[in-house]
Amino acid sequence: MSKRIIEVCFSPALYKYFENKEAIVIIVDILRASSAICTAFMNGVKSIIPVATLEEAEDYKKKGYLVAAERDGIVRNFADFGNSPFNFTRERVEGKSIVYSTTNGTQAIEMASLSYRVIIGSFLNFSAINSYVVKENRNVLVFCAGWKNKFNLEDTLYAGAVTDYLLLHNHFSTICDSALASRDLWNLAKNDLTGYIEKAAQRHRLKKNKLDDVLEYCHTLDISSSVPVLKDGIIISLAELTGK
Amino acid sequence: MSKRIIEVCFSPALYKYFENKEAIVIIVDILRASSAICTAFMNGVKSIIPVATLEEAEDYKKKGYLVAAERDGIVRNFADFGNSPFNFTRERVEGKSIVYSTTNGTQAIEMASLSYRVIIGSFLNFSAINSYVVKENRNVLVFCAGWKNKFNLEDTLYAGAVTDYLLLHNHFSTICDSALASRDLWNLAKNDLTGYIEKAAQRHRLKKNKLDDVLEYCHTLDISSSVPVLKDGIIISLAELTGK
Repeated sequence: MSKRIIEVCFSPALYKYFENKEAIVIIVDILRASSAICTAFMNGVKSIIPVATLEEAEDYKKKGYLVAAERDGIVRNFADFGNSPFNFTRERVEGKSIVYSTTNGTQAIEMASLSYRVIIGSFLNFSAINSYVVKENRNVLVFCAGWKNKFNLEDTLYAGAVTDYLLLHNHFSTICDSALASRDLWNLAKNDLTGYIEKAAQRHRLKKNKLDDVLEYCHTLDISSSVPVLKDGIIISLAELTGK
Repeated sequence: MSKRIIEVCFSPALYKYFENKEAIVIIVDILRASSAICTAFMNGVKSIIPVATLEEAEDYKKKGYLVAAERDGIVRNFADFGNSPFNFTRERVEGKSIVYSTTNGTQAIEMASLSYRVIIGSFLNFSAINSYVVKENRNVLVFCAGWKNKFNLEDTLYAGAVTDYLLLHNHFSTICDSALASRDLWNLAKNDLTGYIEKAAQRHRLKKNKLDDVLEYCHTLDISSSVPVLKDGIIISLAELTGK
């Protein structure tokens, strides 16, 4: 069997150069959308409806949905909450459907929606994601949501962690320079993740808005075994998709 | 005096998010366009006319110009040579004007042409470039030509080397994650540059086409003191621009 390929895309603006409808796409937006979505599924949310624009989010609010919506880290007036993972408690989300719009994350989900499978990755469900993609016989693309189309460190470290895991696993190979660079950065940072991320631009943005309380949490490994997966435009759990 | 800013752009597809008409833009395409251009100036070329399309290059050839033109590393039929730095010998280029079109490099030059100053960087003229940008009171953007709009390792290492130098120099700072990542990769690779670059995708492409004889040369530090600079669409030496 020929080896499967792992690639990394650093920005939505670069996605068209990596697009592959046969691949599994792992969407990552560590600070904070993908960490928030993974937290919601850990806490029993039924589904998350990602919408790219604030207008769509507000329309859903008028229809009575619970809505999470932010831009530049700041929760919008009409919304129930923003994208701090700490908002998505079991008390609030269990059994519910939540509409979600964020600066970078939900746009990336929409762009990748024609792929074989779109899943939501974070450090929180790191091993669950890896186990799933190892089982499927597909190429894998880690799609970093970035910051307003710019490269960011925190998504890249996650991409590097996945790359490192899959390359150490025998069935994957790569000649993607983004994947190789991510892997090297991950190996440089992994022993002191939150220390390394101190210098990241998004860490400064969050601090400025007093939203940096999530930093350590968003870099915690494997507290969730749930794999959020896109199905007909809505994110549900892999367990619900497969009926297992 | 407030500190000047150093930023790094990983791809022409991301340039619009970094564009700053007041900044100095360092164009880099280590394997091989910017290394070839710097070699030509080291060997006394009078000027280089960068053209984005092969059609323009062929039109210049018909007018009697010496033309360098390649795509995917392969020299084009109508051209005098491709973009191996080894083509740009003193015997061939001294005192001449050369038209030049390459896969990634010349497009990046055209995109950046509205900036305060566009200069061509490589490891070959590393210190000359740094000395120039330190003297000017401007923000600096290292613009990696990449490979068909994808991130590449060799341009990134150069960007990291420049970032490292300018941050160690007191007058620069950054919160650009691309600059910080580049710097970390540079510090990881710098003690064995050609060993590190063995894994780069472009290294494999060149090897496949038996064009990898330039690898060690393109990673040689400071064999040229010439700074190639764009003036009215044509690359000349900084010495000629300033009359020094």
